[in-house]
Amino acid sequence: MNPGSFPAHIIRDDHFRDHCGIFAIHGHAEAAKLTYLGLYALQHRGQESAGIAVSDGERIVGHKGMGHVADVFTKEVLDGLPGRMAIGHTRYSTAGDTDLKNAQPLVVSCQKGQVALAHNGNLVNASTSRKELEARGAIFQTSSDTELIVHHFARSKQSGVPEAVADALDRVKGAYSLVMLFKDFIYGIRDPHGFRPLALGRLGEPPNQAWVLASETCAFDLIGAKFERDIEPGEMVILDARGPTFLRFAPPQPKQCIFEHVYFSRPDSLVFGRSVQGSREMLGRQLAREHPADADIVVPVPDSGVAAAIGYAEESDIPLKFGLIRNHYVGRTFIEPGQAIRDFGVRLKLNPVARLMEGKRVVLVDDSIIRGTTSRKIVRIVKEAGAREVHVRISCPPTVSPCYYGIDTPTRSELIAATHTEESIREFIGADSLGYLSLEGLRRAVEDTKGHYCLACYTAEYPTTVQEQLIALRNRD
Amino acid sequence: MNPGSFPAHIIRDDHFRDHCGIFAIHGHAEAAKLTYLGLYALQHRGQESAGIAVSDGERIVGHKGMGHVADVFTKEVLDGLPGRMAIGHTRYSTAGDTDLKNAQPLVVSCQKGQVALAHNGNLVNASTSRKELEARGAIFQTSSDTELIVHHFARSKQSGVPEAVADALDRVKGAYSLVMLFKDFIYGIRDPHGFRPLALGRLGEPPNQAWVLASETCAFDLIGAKFERDIEPGEMVILDARGPTFLRFAPPQPKQCIFEHVYFSRPDSLVFGRSVQGSREMLGRQLAREHPADADIVVPVPDSGVAAAIGYAEESDIPLKFGLIRNHYVGRTFIEPGQAIRDFGVRLKLNPVARLMEGKRVVLVDDSIIRGTTSRKIVRIVKEAGAREVHVRISCPPTVSPCYYGIDTPTRSELIAATHTEESIREFIGADSLGYLSLEGLRRAVEDTKGHYCLACYTAEYPTTVQEQLIALRNRD
Amino acid sequence: MNPGSFPAHIIRDDHFRDHCGIFAIHGHAEAAKLTYLGLYALQHRGQESAGIAVSDGERIVGHKGMGHVADVFTKEVLDGLPGRMAIGHTRYSTAGDTDLKNAQPLVVSCQKGQVALAHNGNLVNASTSRKELEARGAIFQTSSDTELIVHHFARSKQSGVPEAVADALDRVKGAYSLVMLFKDFIYGIRDPHGFRPLALGRLGEPPNQAWVLASETCAFDLIGAKFERDIEPGEMVILDARGPTFLRFAPPQPKQCIFEHVYFSRPDSLVFGRSVQGSREMLGRQLAREHPADADIVVPVPDSGVAAAIGYAEESDIPLKFGLIRNHYVGRTFIEPGQAIRDFGVRLKLNPVARLMEGKRVVLVDDSIIRGTTSRKIVRIVKEAGAREVHVRISCPPTVSPCYYGIDTPTRSELIAATHTEESIREFIGADSLGYLSLEGLRRAVEDTKGHYCLACYTAEYPTTVQEQLIALRNRD
Amino acid sequence: MNPGSFPAHIIRDDHFRDHCGIFAIHGHAEAAKLTYLGLYALQHRGQESAGIAVSDGERIVGHKGMGHVADVFTKEVLDGLPGRMAIGHTRYSTAGDTDLKNAQPLVVSCQKGQVALAHNGNLVNASTSRKELEARGAIFQTSSDTELIVHHFARSKQSGVPEAVADALDRVKGAYSLVMLFKDFIYGIRDPHGFRPLALGRLGEPPNQAWVLASETCAFDLIGAKFERDIEPGEMVILDARGPTFLRFAPPQPKQCIFEHVYFSRPDSLVFGRSVQGSREMLGRQLAREHPADADIVVPVPDSGVAAAIGYAEESDIPLKFGLIRNHYVGRTFIEPGQAIRDFGVRLKLNPVARLMEGKRVVLVDDSIIRGTTSRKIVRIVKEAGAREVHVRISCPPTVSPCYYGIDTPTRSELIAATHTEESIREFIGADSLGYLSLEGLRRAVEDTKGHYCLACYTAEYPTTVQEQLIALRNRD
Repeated sequence: MNPGSFPAHIIRDDHFRDHCGIFAIHGHAEAAKLTYLGLYALQHRGQESAGIAVSDGERIVGHKGMGHVADVFTKEVLDGLPGRMAIGHTRYSTAGDTDLKNAQPLVVSCQKGQVALAHNGNLVNASTSRKELEARGAIFQTSSDTELIVHHFARSKQSGVPEAVADALDRVKGAYSLVMLFKDFIYGIRDPHGFRPLALGRLGEPPNQAWVLASETCAFDLIGAKFERDIEPGEMVILDARGPTFLRFAPPQPKQCIFEHVYFSRPDSLVFGRSVQGSREMLGRQLAREHPADADIVVPVPDSGVAAAIGYAEESDIPLKFGLIRNHYVGRTFIEPGQAIRDFGVRLKLNPVARLMEGKRVVLVDDSIIRGTTSRKIVRIVKEAGAREVHVRISCPPTVSPCYYGIDTPTRSELIAATHTEESIREFIGADSLGYLSLEGLRRAVEDTKGHYCLACYTAEYPTTVQEQLIALRNRD
Repeated sequence: MNPGSFPAHIIRDDHFRDHCGIFAIHGHAEAAKLTYLGLYALQHRGQESAGIAVSDGERIVGHKGMGHVADVFTKEVLDGLPGRMAIGHTRYSTAGDTDLKNAQPLVVSCQKGQVALAHNGNLVNASTSRKELEARGAIFQTSSDTELIVHHFARSKQSGVPEAVADALDRVKGAYSLVMLFKDFIYGIRDPHGFRPLALGRLGEPPNQAWVLASETCAFDLIGAKFERDIEPGEMVILDARGPTFLRFAPPQPKQCIFEHVYFSRPDSLVFGRSVQGSREMLGRQLAREHPADADIVVPVPDSGVAAAIGYAEESDIPLKFGLIRNHYVGRTFIEPGQAIRDFGVRLKLNPVARLMEGKRVVLVDDSIIRGTTSRKIVRIVKEAGAREVHVRISCPPTVSPCYYGIDTPTRSELIAATHTEESIREFIGADSLGYLSLEGLRRAVEDTKGHYCLACYTAEYPTTVQEQLIALRNRD
Repeated sequence: MNPGSFPAHIIRDDHFRDHCGIFAIHGHAEAAKLTYLGLYALQHRGQESAGIAVSDGERIVGHKGMGHVADVFTKEVLDGLPGRMAIGHTRYSTAGDTDLKNAQPLVVSCQKGQVALAHNGNLVNASTSRKELEARGAIFQTSSDTELIVHHFARSKQSGVPEAVADALDRVKGAYSLVMLFKDFIYGIRDPHGFRPLALGRLGEPPNQAWVLASETCAFDLIGAKFERDIEPGEMVILDARGPTFLRFAPPQPKQCIFEHVYFSRPDSLVFGRSVQGSREMLGRQLAREHPADADIVVPVPDSGVAAAIGYAEESDIPLKFGLIRNHYVGRTFIEPGQAIRDFGVRLKLNPVARLMEGKRVVLVDDSIIRGTTSRKIVRIVKEAGAREVHVRISCPPTVSPCYYGIDTPTRSELIAATHTEESIREFIGADSLGYLSLEGLRRAVEDTKGHYCLACYTAEYPTTVQEQLIALRNRD
Repeated sequence: MNPGSFPAHIIRDDHFRDHCGIFAIHGHAEAAKLTYLGLYALQHRGQESAGIAVSDGERIVGHKGMGHVADVFTKEVLDGLPGRMAIGHTRYSTAGDTDLKNAQPLVVSCQKGQVALAHNGNLVNASTSRKELEARGAIFQTSSDTELIVHHFARSKQSGVPEAVADALDRVKGAYSLVMLFKDFIYGIRDPHGFRPLALGRLGEPPNQAWVLASETCAFDLIGAKFERDIEPGEMVILDARGPTFLRFAPPQPKQCIFEHVYFSRPDSLVFGRSVQGSREMLGRQLAREHPADADIVVPVPDSGVAAAIGYAEESDIPLKFGLIRNHYVGRTFIEPGQAIRDFGVRLKLNPVARLMEGKRVVLVDDSIIRGTTSRKIVRIVKEAGAREVHVRISCPPTVSPCYYGIDTPTRSELIAATHTEESIREFIGADSLGYLSLEGLRRAVEDTKGHYCLACYTAEYPTTVQEQLIALRNRD
């Protein structure tokens, strides 16, 4: 992550990707427009589709489309979304189901009236839950696990909404940060492990205040809202005319996603109560302590390695140099020449500044190695630019296991660290030395003394049971 | 300028803008595709239109369109541009003549056959030259001064092409780096002052080598070409089957544009034989020497101030912190809420990392202050994020005069430094102190001992006479 | 309806509109492409959205989008729809729910597996049926009544598909011609009244034959299929590897929509076993017998009145003249000049040929008068072109009642004939005389001796009970 | 040509095509919008590009683009075209130069100031004229011959505009109907042979009247203007504040294009002072006299043969039947199934009404046979629909020679009648008999007693000398 810019995931083919960003606002005359801006700030959490649903107290209507927030919503569309309550969603999806029908918010009507729902996360009991519901007559129109939550809610015998929501949550397992829009109020919900973030903010002063929920606090900053506090794991908040009411629906067992700090979130956000930028610099400092290098300069891989590189440079007192320049216009489709240009894909994105690196011993800092192929190309580019030695430093431990909680990961067999030793990875990427941050160092950098983070991608120790279908899907060859 | 990324000009409304990038290649079976890639690498020099003209030895054909390179050219379009010779152009234009007819390359036929031309720069005798040509029966189909060069060429009494080109160049004054495509060869030309850059590169090894010309060497890097040397001021190069032949058509009087190093060029380019990234770091170091600050952290304005901030931090030994984060998704049209959000436009692009700046004395580094309004908003954002003091440092002298040589500048009355003292600028932008790099320091940073740089935007001393119409245009209120 | 062209409904703002066209094919390697062509031929039945679902024997997938068939489907999209079975749908919808989520086919999964469904018609017990389903836990994601049929099917206690389908049909009332796609077979269904058409065709010869279903036989013609027979009211056909199997699920009570012959269907189709073109000529002949005119020429309103005008001219022996010319490029958005051009909207579409009408007594033939405003403008245009007298003849009875069976009609209060006498209509439109075809004449023209046509729009006698909500909707002021 | 609709050329691949429609208006506050509407009415004369240029008395500006009028111009674009004078152009071009640079109006500045020009027709001395101009230093930016006229005008020694225009016209030969826009006035010009039409109309009453020029009077009808008279061959009209002034610049030698009446113009237009619809009916009547048939029904090929079919049916007293139905949605790109559907291209456009033709002897009327392949497919479709005999009747003589005056024709070798006898054409298309209208009959139908029509496409007798290059181009194999 570049401290000077957050990641344009779209161009990184060798990084994990998050599934979604969610946003909600209650009590503002421009609810749809502010939701648009909130999604705009959360664009990095999903670029494939965007949607907003609003309630004017009478009726819930929505609009969603494929593409970036700014493409999906025009002024005309937003003007057609009236009301003082809104929720929004921005989504990344895996290739198989890139389809508008899976875009969110999901808007349905049922015996409890209309409800719209936006979901960040992934359920781990989706397939059995789906079969049970179908056996009871349910029809499914999407391939998203989010639809399950709505079915359970609609079928709940509980007549009160909070009870019916709790009833539904009782039947699903896994990762879910949710916002639900009803005719008159909004629910914000975080699963008992709190895998994915969800923060509460306040816009304006009493009595003219509105309440907002967002995956990251950068969405609050843009609209001028103030961060109040996180929704707790196992907690739901109800936003209505009286303001927020907090309810606990399950005992908290915090297992927050460490990768939000390592890579996903914007550096200017607070996530799980911590500055993301600060965490990343600490990761770099810790990395320098664990894996010092006898080198001349520290060079970050832009933009993903920049914050850790600053920490590394400060701690090691080796000068930081921006020896790799990123082309911001990359990301569109382009035309490859027939004649092979070596490492063409990476060259389109990154270009070395040879003058800075010629004859130098370089510490090259990045936030992860997934398949290894991109790292290999970058090392080669740095060497071809004249670097004498390249010492690769990674600001997290080796990634060995897929995620089941809302992150899009390659299958296990594609993760180079799942099948190779560090030495063979070093050899594969062509580095003179390779150092990964230790698990211990990682936890120390985010001050995780109580085991409140999910580290499963580094340890394969999953906080929940996971359905076999899902495991098979992610571990297939 | 971010050392980790080159500028996305499109989102900077308060920066000077360059007019064009040019590219040419001779002797390659994929001439059109490589030109496409070259323009891709030069996209930052002009986003409004793009064009390519090719020759297959028989006929010159071209394609151009409004928009980014990747939008204008599809695979089908490129496949329809055959031949081993090509030139390309990417263009930024002022509002008045944003029109496809002004896009380049300009392709014409005349008694000397077909010729295509792409131009970076601006002529200073365009209006009288145009009147003279019209009096002799010429018709003009564009409002671009580039058309003049072609008219003079077509009308030259000289029968040889080099003589006719020299004849035409003799009649125009001002800034021009040119590439001209004829049926069988390509010309690369740089005006006697060498205002704008033009570099020669070589792709492949003898005997299978192709020769390339580009505004910046980053275009060579992408296609794997090697930088050979700059075309000299007052020199033209002819690329044909025998390789490059160099001719001098006028005595050199180098006055190279300093702003290419301060802001325009990509940091990974060599421009006028120097590393741009290196120049910028030196500007920051020099700035630290001239205007030290008693401060806790150095914060760059991303992306324009990053390289200078690194130099400043290194020289001053104050830690560098990325206290402002840039949103990469900005640049599309967006919808502003009816309710005013203070400094909304800047907030969309920049968000502070409060944790890094709270209670701190901040040195805020940028590369220029044009109108002052954006700087003022950024200072306010930094202060609202908790900074105790904000010391603004600018890596060049106050900008007091418009450019007539190919840079799009506001009129004189819009340049805050043209009409205000440094103290009143400091007050206007709300900084606790303000320091501009001195003219002396600027020249020292780029090692300009011989007066080979044009500094007119800081000194109002123009290397050439300038027609009154042009002066009036840029100095109107 | 022009005998030389079928109607481009999109430009007729004063005509009833049909809701949908449906198509299905079983047993062809190019099922998706042939469905595309079938929908292409049925484009006039709905221009707002189009969709295709296919089965490859394993899985049902679909694609749908807003717009014309040729816009929604590209070669790439069709190539991504594999399998030997397909159904398709083209849809017109009322303004309120113009939304992709309501486009069809509807594809769901349920305990009976995946099923896709395309529906032409309108249910008359939708709102009570929906409430019952919601009370039993169903969630609704569309505002289309088609979703009801799928819910009833998914919840049926019947384990066999035919029984479960029959069970579902038992619970819905109104107009429905349906095609349903399952993993291995296709159902074609027509409601007991047979309001909307559905024809069976055969493509190729045994053993390489495929079976097709379509709203109109013109879809068969385009792909080279032969018409076999209509699906009967109250009948379902199952297309599987053994060919078609016919089942009767309810006793037939034929009440076929007369407006298919008067206006909707393409003239080259067979509908309800009759040639549409032939029916229209007979309507014109009958009209001439009932309402002769002492006139010089017969002029059709293109394209809607052409076929009837031919019949009228033949029967009356008055020469047919194309005194009004239609502009085929109309239909796109256009820009109206600020200065009012009288009858501008109609003038864009129709232009008189003055030479043909000057001084003449004109019989102006059209197929209907809905609000009267368009007819009034056309009469004025004809008079301004020099016609001495204008005798309007309409090839059906006065339209006095809204349709509840799948036709989009204005509310009752907008139907001029619902609230005005023929004499006051004549006066309003400015005609010298006005003649409507009688109900008796209408039935004679289509040889309806047994009362097998629904004439409710002329008589207000509805073949089924209709829910009050629906009646209220169509009769509101 | 359908009397009920004018031709959508875009879908006819077997017809000659016109090059352009032109329009001009002087003295109206909404000049650009009315020009837009005028072009809208002339859309059938060219669908590849459209353009408008306006003058506000100070400056001429324009906008043009590829595509239909309604696509090229939005409200915003038209609002940006101020002034009380405008000219417009709609263009069809041959494949080779389908390029925006060739779109018109051509707007240039020269020593006589700014001028915009729109041209319908084709020059026959373009290549020598071009060479002469190049030798005198001219540069050409388009491949259109229209640019020649502007060059000659700009270089004229004559200082007065009318004299300079006459001077320019003196140097070009061939077909040209022109509108030229200057800062303060508009010129309308028709070449001495008057190949292409140009009519003058008046909008409004004195003193608030505006003057308009158009290729066809249908453009007047749409905006409410009245036809005044044609511009005569060899005449120019100047529209300025005093109204129209007529000047003769060359003696008239009328050779008006007969194909405007046979096929090109809209039936509701007056062209060369005659009703197009009336001409076509007379062509059909004459055809019936020359080539009677012992048949049961007359069936037109829609839309091209309809008007002549009416005349034929009336004269022969054989009933007219619309046995072929045209699909109005055709014209977009579509996807052809892999499995060949016989005569697929024609079937997409035309579908037979079998009921009308079964067992019948059919007179099939069309306006031309170009290559013969389409006619062959249509005859086959009619026979497969059950016709017992098919007697093809063509409402003009055999087309044997290419056109050099502004019509896009195949090369000579592609014209079936240039190389085949009538009997072998009959055999090729599979008709039972074939009759072409005689040259004599053609002239009689348009009352051409003085030889004022160009009949070169039927006779190969060209009214002017034609440059060899052009002849070679159109007669190549």
